[in-house]
Order: sequence, then structure tokens, then C-alpha cells
Amino acid sequence: MKNALLASTSTLHGQEYLEYLIPYIKDFFKDVKEVLFIPYARPGGISHQGYTELALEGFQKANVNLKGLNEFNNPEKAIENAEAVFTGGGNTFLLVSELYRNKLMSLLQEKINTGMPYMGTSAGSNIGGLTMQTTNDMPIVYPPSFKTLGIVPFNINPHYLDPDKNSKHKGETRETRIKEFHTQNTQPVVGLREGSWLLVSDNKITLKGKLPARIFEVEKVPYELEPNSNLNQLY
Amino acid sequence: MKNALLASTSTLHGQEYLEYLIPYIKDFFKDVKEVLFIPYARPGGISHQGYTELALEGFQKANVNLKGLNEFNNPEKAIENAEAVFTGGGNTFLLVSELYRNKLMSLLQEKINTGMPYMGTSAGSNIGGLTMQTTNDMPIVYPPSFKTLGIVPFNINPHYLDPDKNSKHKGETRETRIKEFHTQNTQPVVGLREGSWLLVSDNKITLKGKLPARIFEVEKVPYELEPNSNLNQLY
Repeated sequence: MKNALLASTSTLHGQEYLEYLIPYIKDFFKDVKEVLFIPYARPGGISHQGYTELALEGFQKANVNLKGLNEFNNPEKAIENAEAVFTGGGNTFLLVSELYRNKLMSLLQEKINTGMPYMGTSAGSNIGGLTMQTTNDMPIVYPPSFKTLGIVPFNINPHYLDPDKNSKHKGETRETRIKEFHTQNTQPVVGLREGSWLLVSDNKITLKGKLPARIFEVEKVPYELEPNSNLNQLY
Repeated sequence: MKNALLASTSTLHGQEYLEYLIPYIKDFFKDVKEVLFIPYARPGGISHQGYTELALEGFQKANVNLKGLNEFNNPEKAIENAEAVFTGGGNTFLLVSELYRNKLMSLLQEKINTGMPYMGTSAGSNIGGLTMQTTNDMPIVYPPSFKTLGIVPFNINPHYLDPDKNSKHKGETRETRIKEFHTQNTQPVVGLREGSWLLVSDNKITLKGKLPARIFEVEKVPYELEPNSNLNQLY
């Protein structure tokens, strides 16, 4: 019975960290005394401690207590004993490398599969998919595998960005990149726009937020899925 | 004595494939009868044959003959016998995976180190750096290593894009991504804007095109380097 909140982004333009998610964090963690924070993705190279402080500040606004994985001597035991986990955004390659290096990937997966609530933003949501292969991040380190938690039976593209029709830049659009992904892989990809999240509640996957999500399936024309749609049929 | 032409992009906005580079291709390959084309990056999932046809069409405008690696039974022998090589853009993870799978990476490196002219665009230029870790592409396949040709003693970021100050999107800017790269790696990164290229002539590295390049060195404020600057001091 999986329970997860997988958000495209931590922060909306002009808002504070986690601001738009506060009421949903409150609700999602309502039976939890303390959330364990995984700071490994280190956005912009921030320290684990600095990132934990930022996450704590956000969570306090939702009246939820939070402790960083960096505050424990044994990360494996910390995950084993965790009531709930929140993984912050940053660089997905770094996050995945550190999870494997510390032998936490399968442990975290087991805990989630047996009901432990999991929340992620950006890179933390990306690893909720089958693989991290639809990340937007630079490969700044070489992880031992691209396989991730598979909380949902598809891949996630966070910060999904529509093509800018006025752009003169010839770099690939997000849609082109995901199309390239589908020349080598078959799982669907959910393009989560900023302010959108997936709520997994006792295995039921629902799109939340105000915007539709863009769905990419192999050999199909991409299409839009409206908020509150169920995504369990995607696999 | 390395000789290379490493271009940020194959195509400028509103132009045809390779159009802006035709006079420079003519000059760079002036002593070459036939160029070997590596189509492995397959932009948008195009076939190897389709990509070779596109490259040939471009090269014919420069009066240079070209044959695709797909037209040879033995890719290793084709590289060994090549007079010159051109690697087209597309997905860098796919390109690097295929080069390793076909045992061509070190072979290509040896040929270039002993003077064989090498041209790349986009992903084909990215692999001219020390590693592919400043690519903008999605990790659609898992390569056995991120190490690349090291024609230049630094990393390249092709299609370098300046931050859009009006953007409300909270995904990382290119500059933020490269800053994250430098939390884990020490080599300099050259952000090559579209229409720019590096010309390596008997080991001398010069920035070409009309635009400055943006240079990122670890623990330094990024700075601009004007066209015709020498980049040999970057290492």
C-alpha cells in the first residue's frame, strides 16, 4: 500500500520554499511525528546541513517535525526506523549515486512498498519513477545504475516545460528529448508542470494541482491529462 | 598534433543543416578525400542511414565526400582506415554508449591524437571534451563510462544558453547546472553559444564564430572570452 506525494517543484515563482504545498504536507503527514529528510541532491552545491535547515523551515510552517539524514550516524538504520521520508530536489545523478553508495535505494523502496509515506520534490520525485532517465539534470557524477524507486509504474519528468514557439535556440525541446527517450525505452513518461504533483494514496495515483500533465507513451501522440485524473492505467 | 573543429550546433535558426559552417568545412577538410560520418547520436530517433544522408547532403555543399559508419561491415576497421571523422549531434548518452559498445572510443582517440582531422557538432563536440558530463541531454541509455575523447583539456557545454531573466520557470538555469558540476569536478567548462566553434589546429585551440564563450572555472566567477581567443591556457 504505497503512499506518496511527488511534486514537480519545491518552489513556485515569487513564493517561498514549499509554500504552495504547505496545506497538502500537513494533510499527507498528519499521522507522522517526524519526517526523515534526504538532503543528498544538494541543489547548487548547498551542504547537507544547510539543506536540512531549509527543509525544516518549510516543514515547520506545516507543523511537521523533520530531521536530516546527515544528523544520524547510520543512514541505513535511520531509513529503517523512519516514520516517513522527504527527499528534496537538486541534482538527480548525485542523489541517485549517494543513495546507492549508502545502500539506501532498495531499503527505501521496501519501506515505501510496505506503506511508509514518501514525499519528493523535483529530483526527489524523479526517483519515484521506474528510472531516473527522464531527469533534466547534468550527469555531474556517474551513478552505479539509473534504476530508481518505482513508486509509480512509469517515468516522471519534473519541471515539465512546453516548447517556446518564439525561441531561436536550436537545443532540443523537452518534448524532443522525451521522444528520444522512447527510441530506447518503452515506459510512459508523465511531464509534470510546475505546481503539479502526483498523490499516491493506498496505491491510487491521482494528478493534483491546477495544470494538466503531458503524457508521453511510446509510439503515441503526446496528450494532456486533466487535474484529478487517475494515472493507474499508465504502464 | 590534434586537428579538430568542435561546433556548438549544426544548424542556426532559419538556416539549413550545416549552412553557416560550409566555408569552414571546406577549409578544414581541404586535404581529405572522404570523411567518415558517425551517426550514432541519432537526433530525434532518425535511422543511421537517414542521418548519413542528411550529413552527406550538407557536406556535398562543401564539395567534401562523406560515408556513414553504417555503410561498413567492420566499424573498427572503418575508423582505423578513416582519413577524417565527423560526428553529428543528437543524444550524447546514446552516442557514447554506442562508441564504447563498438570499441571505438579509444581507437578514435588514438587516431585524433596522431593528427586525423575530427569534426563534431553538438553531441559530437561534447565528446571532444574530457567527459560528457556537461551535456544537456537526457540519460536515455546507461553508458559504461562518462569519459570521452579529451581533444581539449576541459569540458564543453554545447548550445550554451544564457539565463532568461524574465522566466518564471524554476528549473535550474544552465549556469546553475554547471555550478553543480563544479561541486563534484574540477575541470573548466566552456559554454559554447550557438554559432560558435572551437578550432584545434596543430594543438592550438581558438574560439571561432561571432559570439564570446562563457568560461566556468571551479571556484571562480564565470567570465566571457572573446572570439579568436586562445583556450590552451584552460586546464
